[in-house]
Amino acid sequence: MSALARLSLNQETTRNWPMPDLVAGCVAAGVRGVGLWRRQVGQYGLARTAKLLRDNGLRATSLCRGGFFTDPATWDSSLADNRRALDEAAELGADVLALVCGGIPDRDLDGARERVVEALAVLGPKAADRGVRLAVEPLHPMFCSDRAVVSTLAQAVDIAERFPAEQVGVLVDAYHVWWDPEVYRQIRRAGPRIAAFQVADWVTPLPAGALTGRGMLGAGCVELRRLREAVDAAGYDGPIEVEIFNEELWARPGAEVLAEVVARFAEHVG
Amino acid sequence: MSALARLSLNQETTRNWPMPDLVAGCVAAGVRGVGLWRRQVGQYGLARTAKLLRDNGLRATSLCRGGFFTDPATWDSSLADNRRALDEAAELGADVLALVCGGIPDRDLDGARERVVEALAVLGPKAADRGVRLAVEPLHPMFCSDRAVVSTLAQAVDIAERFPAEQVGVLVDAYHVWWDPEVYRQIRRAGPRIAAFQVADWVTPLPAGALTGRGMLGAGCVELRRLREAVDAAGYDGPIEVEIFNEELWARPGAEVLAEVVARFAEHVG
Repeated sequence: MSALARLSLNQETTRNWPMPDLVAGCVAAGVRGVGLWRRQVGQYGLARTAKLLRDNGLRATSLCRGGFFTDPATWDSSLADNRRALDEAAELGADVLALVCGGIPDRDLDGARERVVEALAVLGPKAADRGVRLAVEPLHPMFCSDRAVVSTLAQAVDIAERFPAEQVGVLVDAYHVWWDPEVYRQIRRAGPRIAAFQVADWVTPLPAGALTGRGMLGAGCVELRRLREAVDAAGYDGPIEVEIFNEELWARPGAEVLAEVVARFAEHVG
Repeated sequence: MSALARLSLNQETTRNWPMPDLVAGCVAAGVRGVGLWRRQVGQYGLARTAKLLRDNGLRATSLCRGGFFTDPATWDSSLADNRRALDEAAELGADVLALVCGGIPDRDLDGARERVVEALAVLGPKAADRGVRLAVEPLHPMFCSDRAVVSTLAQAVDIAERFPAEQVGVLVDAYHVWWDPEVYRQIRRAGPRIAAFQVADWVTPLPAGALTGRGMLGAGCVELRRLREAVDAAGYDGPIEVEIFNEELWARPGAEVLAEVVARFAEHVG
């Protein structure tokens, strides 16, 4: 299988590219998968997005994102929103819902982490029912307070293993886990729990807020190919999503960014 | 022992406070320890700083910092500089040299981590000879690429345990380790390896570069008292340094910041 066959473009990498142009651009570039975001899908229309993908033979490799269920004050609405996200993923044909689990309300880190498990227990059966796997994504620890209290792959696997494998897996994003002295051991351990794999590079300095500091493949210090090989060796043979949040990329034409992604992917990942 | 008896003001918290004012301010506030920085000590003079502290009954609780020995291109000069730092610490009466071990040259994370061990093997005997303990500081993983490839307390203890306890310990900084699902277990494990303990709070959003984003005690989400109690339970009864890098604090008068530190310390840590 060529490197290109596994490459999926997460649409936040080219966030200003309108949905039809994104789809046409992927088809033209030979890219067969896209990682979708709910906001963008909602703007274009759920059924319309599903049809556009089907008509163009494109696969939705994941839907981003569910999660944010750590705050007791918004527990019910969050679960309702996650159920909708599962319905949307099913309609799009995405078999993975990426979970950014949420941050810390009221300085209660342990409590927030417990609520992640509680939410998965509620959502798991619904996910299995819709044929969508919940993918717990450990985020870089710099996002622990405000985005995801799941901070390491070990922790994500610990959580996932409390549930049937078809309900809950983990999402390995190279950008979030590369620094971890345990990462290769935990990738081996995760094995069939790996539901999705994403790549971006780590570059410094971080911008204010840290969120949009991701680098183009090969621009930073992450051993992307080594991580990809480790994930493969653990048994994962699914799509590899390129997900880069970067203001400079967002300012460029989508097709130009995608062409660079394709070339860099072959050089640094595939 | 009152909370104040263990409080040490790391001088980077009040970085623009001249050395004599800092010392006088600590004495006036009843603070008995200061964490020193080599740059500031160098500016005021090494022997002069040592005398100023002695004359005022103040203890240097640590010297910041050694380290940055992960780059083969600067290996010899880095080790020479670390030897000088050990001499300076000894002259100041500081029994701890804080080590920020250095980042990743040439995308070789494993190699950088190996060089940390190699450097400690070279420096350890010299440290013991000078009566100064090398304190390996795990830095938050957001600094892994450019400041410290030691990213978790587990990793720091793994490294320290390869050496005699009187040569190499670990520095536990709440700001760097609070997010870690393993932190309380690793603090227990570290036990007598804990050579120093520092506190600052985690606040968001991070500023550009991430370095100066630390928050005043109680301003963020870190369970400072719980961490302090865990460190105590592990057998540590030494000074607790308040080390906050924050542009807003730096713009305020040192005495005013110290007064706030003393009050917040009692409320959130001591």
